[in-house]
Amino acid sequence: MTSNIQIDGNPAFARIPPWVQAKLRPIALEKIQAVHDWVETECIPAERIYKAQLKETRWTTPAIIHELRQKAKARGLFNLFLPNHFEESPGLTNLEYSCCAEIMGRVYWAAQTMNCHAPETGNIELLAKYCTPEQKKRWLYPLMNGDMSSAYSMTEPDVASSDATQIGIKMEITNKEIIINGRKLYGNCQYNEDMQLYILMGCSDPNNPNPWNRHTTLVVPANTPGLKQVRNLTIMGYDWAPEGHGEYIYENVRVPIENIILGPGRAFEIAQGRLGPGRIHHCMRLIGQAERAFELALIRCIEPRKKPRGKFIGEFDSNIERIADMRMTIDAMRLVVLNAADTMDLQGNKAGRYAIAQSKIMVPNALLKVIDEAMQMYGGQGLTQHTPLPEIWTYARFVRVADGPDSAHRHQVGRDQMKTAKAFRERAEQYTAKYKELCKKWNLEPEEFWGIV
Amino acid sequence: MTSNIQIDGNPAFARIPPWVQAKLRPIALEKIQAVHDWVETECIPAERIYKAQLKETRWTTPAIIHELRQKAKARGLFNLFLPNHFEESPGLTNLEYSCCAEIMGRVYWAAQTMNCHAPETGNIELLAKYCTPEQKKRWLYPLMNGDMSSAYSMTEPDVASSDATQIGIKMEITNKEIIINGRKLYGNCQYNEDMQLYILMGCSDPNNPNPWNRHTTLVVPANTPGLKQVRNLTIMGYDWAPEGHGEYIYENVRVPIENIILGPGRAFEIAQGRLGPGRIHHCMRLIGQAERAFELALIRCIEPRKKPRGKFIGEFDSNIERIADMRMTIDAMRLVVLNAADTMDLQGNKAGRYAIAQSKIMVPNALLKVIDEAMQMYGGQGLTQHTPLPEIWTYARFVRVADGPDSAHRHQVGRDQMKTAKAFRERAEQYTAKYKELCKKWNLEPEEFWGIV
Amino acid sequence: MTSNIQIDGNPAFARIPPWVQAKLRPIALEKIQAVHDWVETECIPAERIYKAQLKETRWTTPAIIHELRQKAKARGLFNLFLPNHFEESPGLTNLEYSCCAEIMGRVYWAAQTMNCHAPETGNIELLAKYCTPEQKKRWLYPLMNGDMSSAYSMTEPDVASSDATQIGIKMEITNKEIIINGRKLYGNCQYNEDMQLYILMGCSDPNNPNPWNRHTTLVVPANTPGLKQVRNLTIMGYDWAPEGHGEYIYENVRVPIENIILGPGRAFEIAQGRLGPGRIHHCMRLIGQAERAFELALIRCIEPRKKPRGKFIGEFDSNIERIADMRMTIDAMRLVVLNAADTMDLQGNKAGRYAIAQSKIMVPNALLKVIDEAMQMYGGQGLTQHTPLPEIWTYARFVRVADGPDSAHRHQVGRDQMKTAKAFRERAEQYTAKYKELCKKWNLEPEEFWGIV
Amino acid sequence: MTSNIQIDGNPAFARIPPWVQAKLRPIALEKIQAVHDWVETECIPAERIYKAQLKETRWTTPAIIHELRQKAKARGLFNLFLPNHFEESPGLTNLEYSCCAEIMGRVYWAAQTMNCHAPETGNIELLAKYCTPEQKKRWLYPLMNGDMSSAYSMTEPDVASSDATQIGIKMEITNKEIIINGRKLYGNCQYNEDMQLYILMGCSDPNNPNPWNRHTTLVVPANTPGLKQVRNLTIMGYDWAPEGHGEYIYENVRVPIENIILGPGRAFEIAQGRLGPGRIHHCMRLIGQAERAFELALIRCIEPRKKPRGKFIGEFDSNIERIADMRMTIDAMRLVVLNAADTMDLQGNKAGRYAIAQSKIMVPNALLKVIDEAMQMYGGQGLTQHTPLPEIWTYARFVRVADGPDSAHRHQVGRDQMKTAKAFRERAEQYTAKYKELCKKWNLEPEEFWGIV
Repeated sequence: MTSNIQIDGNPAFARIPPWVQAKLRPIALEKIQAVHDWVETECIPAERIYKAQLKETRWTTPAIIHELRQKAKARGLFNLFLPNHFEESPGLTNLEYSCCAEIMGRVYWAAQTMNCHAPETGNIELLAKYCTPEQKKRWLYPLMNGDMSSAYSMTEPDVASSDATQIGIKMEITNKEIIINGRKLYGNCQYNEDMQLYILMGCSDPNNPNPWNRHTTLVVPANTPGLKQVRNLTIMGYDWAPEGHGEYIYENVRVPIENIILGPGRAFEIAQGRLGPGRIHHCMRLIGQAERAFELALIRCIEPRKKPRGKFIGEFDSNIERIADMRMTIDAMRLVVLNAADTMDLQGNKAGRYAIAQSKIMVPNALLKVIDEAMQMYGGQGLTQHTPLPEIWTYARFVRVADGPDSAHRHQVGRDQMKTAKAFRERAEQYTAKYKELCKKWNLEPEEFWGIV
Repeated sequence: MTSNIQIDGNPAFARIPPWVQAKLRPIALEKIQAVHDWVETECIPAERIYKAQLKETRWTTPAIIHELRQKAKARGLFNLFLPNHFEESPGLTNLEYSCCAEIMGRVYWAAQTMNCHAPETGNIELLAKYCTPEQKKRWLYPLMNGDMSSAYSMTEPDVASSDATQIGIKMEITNKEIIINGRKLYGNCQYNEDMQLYILMGCSDPNNPNPWNRHTTLVVPANTPGLKQVRNLTIMGYDWAPEGHGEYIYENVRVPIENIILGPGRAFEIAQGRLGPGRIHHCMRLIGQAERAFELALIRCIEPRKKPRGKFIGEFDSNIERIADMRMTIDAMRLVVLNAADTMDLQGNKAGRYAIAQSKIMVPNALLKVIDEAMQMYGGQGLTQHTPLPEIWTYARFVRVADGPDSAHRHQVGRDQMKTAKAFRERAEQYTAKYKELCKKWNLEPEEFWGIV
Repeated sequence: MTSNIQIDGNPAFARIPPWVQAKLRPIALEKIQAVHDWVETECIPAERIYKAQLKETRWTTPAIIHELRQKAKARGLFNLFLPNHFEESPGLTNLEYSCCAEIMGRVYWAAQTMNCHAPETGNIELLAKYCTPEQKKRWLYPLMNGDMSSAYSMTEPDVASSDATQIGIKMEITNKEIIINGRKLYGNCQYNEDMQLYILMGCSDPNNPNPWNRHTTLVVPANTPGLKQVRNLTIMGYDWAPEGHGEYIYENVRVPIENIILGPGRAFEIAQGRLGPGRIHHCMRLIGQAERAFELALIRCIEPRKKPRGKFIGEFDSNIERIADMRMTIDAMRLVVLNAADTMDLQGNKAGRYAIAQSKIMVPNALLKVIDEAMQMYGGQGLTQHTPLPEIWTYARFVRVADGPDSAHRHQVGRDQMKTAKAFRERAEQYTAKYKELCKKWNLEPEEFWGIV
Repeated sequence: MTSNIQIDGNPAFARIPPWVQAKLRPIALEKIQAVHDWVETECIPAERIYKAQLKETRWTTPAIIHELRQKAKARGLFNLFLPNHFEESPGLTNLEYSCCAEIMGRVYWAAQTMNCHAPETGNIELLAKYCTPEQKKRWLYPLMNGDMSSAYSMTEPDVASSDATQIGIKMEITNKEIIINGRKLYGNCQYNEDMQLYILMGCSDPNNPNPWNRHTTLVVPANTPGLKQVRNLTIMGYDWAPEGHGEYIYENVRVPIENIILGPGRAFEIAQGRLGPGRIHHCMRLIGQAERAFELALIRCIEPRKKPRGKFIGEFDSNIERIADMRMTIDAMRLVVLNAADTMDLQGNKAGRYAIAQSKIMVPNALLKVIDEAMQMYGGQGLTQHTPLPEIWTYARFVRVADGPDSAHRHQVGRDQMKTAKAFRERAEQYTAKYKELCKKWNLEPEEFWGIV
């Protein structure tokens, strides 16, 4: 297969660094172009349509989304995120998908039109990896086909969930069903009727001596009796309808034994497997959101109505320097995300663990400043609904805590690095030994610095 | 040519991201390994030898440097920086050289042992590009052979040199010689007798209506009568002997007409040509300096004598997080530098202009914080000569101003971005037009936001 | 009058620096104590009551507010903000009021219960300063008595409002009325029926050669025909009901000539007079909001349910250092605000202009980081409605743009400083002259540094 | 006593905030004015004289310093730092001295001309507090009289000195002398013959069950046999001659028993007493250094030779904003320092512990950025000896570690704050209890937020 797509001067490829452009296969060129056209033509102009439709029926997916999903599926734009080593994959690598994901990210809900939204992507990957053929028929294919949507439920209010061994919701396993009792935070809202299943992690064997074998992951249909949503959780005041995040009580919720994934006590095995590309999809899309913010800042820079002291905002040197910093920050963060995706492609998800953490920590922190700067360029208006900037900022802020607060990830990276200290210390001792030999050769008295290797 | 070098677990390649590893040709693998071995074995252990020898004869290149240069040349490690499109090149791409340069950067003067130091690299590139065969014989080959060293002299005390059209030193061109009068800042010290030529930019045709045709670049032998070094310029208190930076007076300095490069009035043509890889060699090497700082921080983290409150410094969670941030910052900055090098390889120096600027602005700023953190982990000792950290920091601080203060580069990047604003504004107008059509389809009243496209 | 109030160990005074404590008069001690008791007992526990009541009738002031306002007025806690040089003042200095205002700030709406909320405070001060006795009777006294509320309307969508001479809404003045046409952004919502008047700045004499004499300020009753609110403006997604911010169209709005304040063309005189304490009331209260955030962070630090890796969050050294930074930042910002208040007390509003700007720029920027850190300590929960932190953050973000984006204020401060450069340059020249004399005395050759005075 | 000094428009008082101006007594007005005149007239113009004299005799105090010290003493400008509760004090409060110290700080060595330099100030305070009359005669009066200078020696290379109980240099106390063995870092150089005594803290009773009773403080004359300086310690490359910092070996150093201060085992009692104003003198003076940097930045802003793109540097909006930020940062930091001084005056050194730590942590960190910005405005020249900026920056960097790295102080502040968490948690529980009562009154169902008090 070859492609006739020209990269030069093509806006779909304008932000992709040369080393990545050089690796894109024809299929990727086609998909990136298609995603770009889709987002520019079908999604961005529809942003306010989406809002208007949502205003009336807060917890129902807007009609325009349903329509766009049908069209996108027909165009072959569904499930692009699933990496090409899965048999169900449409064929992109993680790196190639990153280029698509950034473009999807330009509109918060565009990924949803292409069935590439969270938590769907992580869930589909998990189900594709660990389900039996029978289970795939019940959950994976309908999700991939866009017939329903799903949630992932792990965090709990009563423990430090960033340490997953503390997860405590009770799962009593009998020989034909599991009885679940406890409380959960997050997971998309039961209110939306498209939302049909929760992938739930709980504690089924609390007395198992091995803390990594105590937990089980299973599927809970959203309408199971005993499962109640207490309230919608707002994020910085936004309800994030029509999906949203919820608080849940499980009171004697019963699901059949066939709903267990992989087997009882194997939740951490699954959790390990989930530590892949799905963890940086937010980052990939956030780059796209930041590009929107950047473009809006540029647009304000030449707004003819806004000329304080007689100059365009973009004529102030301070803003010229700000625009430069914004540009460079986005581009550096893109390099970090793309490198993480590429590392997974070349060396596998496990080898990519550090690069994934690097993305998760650095990208939202850096882009929050970019987006905030864009808001500030709009003055008071920048905080209002006149632009999408407040929602873009809020999304970026959310990504800082999604999947655990950044300090937890930073701590993990730091501890891994600390383990390398000993080898450097030994190397330093060898330098010193060699230095002492050189002193003899050059007839010098070795110098000693107290307290230093 | 193939290579037997294994990358996995090999410290010479440990920090190179997978996408770059995948592009390294056998020659690059060999050179990177050789540079790594050279720096680890011959340079780092010799750091204090260098200092000791320098203490006595401040403006003479230490004997160990002369010895190491001979050995490095014999091993084929000379001039690696010269990209493979030059006939004089040893054959590496910019990307491949970046990997070497980072390792060289581990010791401030290691590049010099391999004839890859500034301003030599920029000068050699310039001479290779623009000299006649005759000129090459006089200057290029001796420099490449390591028989002498050179300086580059552009900045002036009396103008804003970041705007090069202001350069004002007078060059009066007669039919057989040029008579030079004026003052210059920077350029390596005349004090060191290895330093044998200045590449000088001056104003030879001040009344030319085209300001880009007024200047000439030529070679001034260091011992030319009338050329006087006023003093050595310290950088944050360091004299940077035995090369150093100087202040110069040119008083009726005469050089033969054959010393003009390319031709009278063509200095900007040369300056343009100089805007290539040489501009980020400092950044490449600074990554290596930052790695040294990082390793020293790690070593302190497990120093058994330093246990405030009974814990190793590396057991404090705050330091664990600091180490993580340091690690991630260095790695992100490496991606920025490598992308700039790769962009030049794939698309040429001109296309790489933005990526070069991005490196020059972001890298030293980010790494200064990393190095500063490392110093702080050593407490008071971190500021003393007990470690190389103060010199590493000072080098990073110098890179922020070398080749112009970062605000000048930032301003340039910002102005280039501002030029793209109009297209985004037009695109935004199209979004709105499309939105209005969609409103009809969905039977909605278009919303207007005042002051927004 | 003396006071029996003890300061030592009294939480009402715990955060007040000694120099301010020493200046508090008995009346201030009494009021601070009373405000503290009021907020702790009547306001903080009622936060969720307020929310619950508001949920149902979004644009009606909740019943609890009406009740609390009656009680606060009865206790002598109304209008404390009005400085003691006004005859209508309850008697506090700006510095003394700052101590009250910080405490009020602990709950976003507590100031409203004491009739000390924005824009009421600025409006009351303006009316007290510039109204005729007749006008005071119609607007000032009812406002001070809490019988109605008011808005201030200056910003426009069609100009750069930070440059107030651009304000363009048309005011046609006839001999008995003013006819107003144009558009305004901001000003509390017309939706709330307590909101009864807009203080409006507009352009009545566009051709006046002096741009400072073109504008007029007047009072527009909220129910005047032709005045229409287009929509509520959200701030980072919050509607800020039941007051909120609005977009307005003025279409042939007619108000009687008696509604002009001070006289036609005197809007800038009034604007100047408004540049006083009202401009930092937000900052004063924001300190209180930040203290709430800090306390919530501390509470999370000892939360027994949240022990990642088996330690309280507050046992992590990284969080110990974060708490310290948060504490110190709040305290430094309080010093900045108190100094601004004290400067106005001692030297007048005009002399306080710089200190006011310093507050407006530094305080919200610094406290945003403190509040953000507090949110992050709560992980995902910190962004939800489980704590008031998202609203506290949003308030701080709002203060960065209220009354103009900080870059406009920063620019003003910078330009004022630039005017002082010449004197420093002259002083530097004198240093050099004196140095040359000293050289003679000490028998030294004067050194010259090029390009330096 | 009254004073004729006018504050208005007087540059000696221009930066002092109104609340401090209002507290200055006539004696303070006189001293501030005198210090100002002294520094402006005698010190700043002599900066390069000092350097020139030092160039030749690196470890001898320059002649100009000796001369200026005589003159300053004659003018009554000696020892101003000693607070007015000491009988030997010239009569200023800490707050009043702060105003003097800032001005002294304008020139690094100006404090020395007034005998107000470190470590002299801390040492004099210590000796004044704890010495017997006989000891005062030997050490205190000669120091106060400027007849010799002294050092303080505590830090050690072999322990974490920020935890002072680890101090390990051995002091064997016999009935007539103390025999000292071990190693020390820092303490001014023995090389300078004016340096006549070390105040030394060591471990005399290592087996004492109470770790706070194991240490002894005593005076070691600089020329005692067995005390050897190993090398001068550079700070960021500067030798800080003619005082400098040293590394020392104590080998059977014997001092008579009369040299013990306060008594054996009482070093921590003395250390506690030393925790007073001496700990923020560096901060006070650093404000003055930052003001110099600020003035130099302003001077560059109007430098006629430096007009990139045809504009003065000070005409770039980005620099206008930078200047504003620099101004505001310095002023905020001054408020922090002055508040710490005032707190000690009003409530004693112990109550001032937090405010002192706040100064020590915040001031150098904030001012480093200001000074760095000033350097950057000078481009490459800013790093050279053309201005004092590199030395000013280095001094600020030094203050970050002097008396312990800032993270140690931050940790202490954080731990103190953590102790207050419990009380806030209890208060929060009371809010909730009260809220539940209010729910009954207003007929609402109490809302619960999981995991939150």
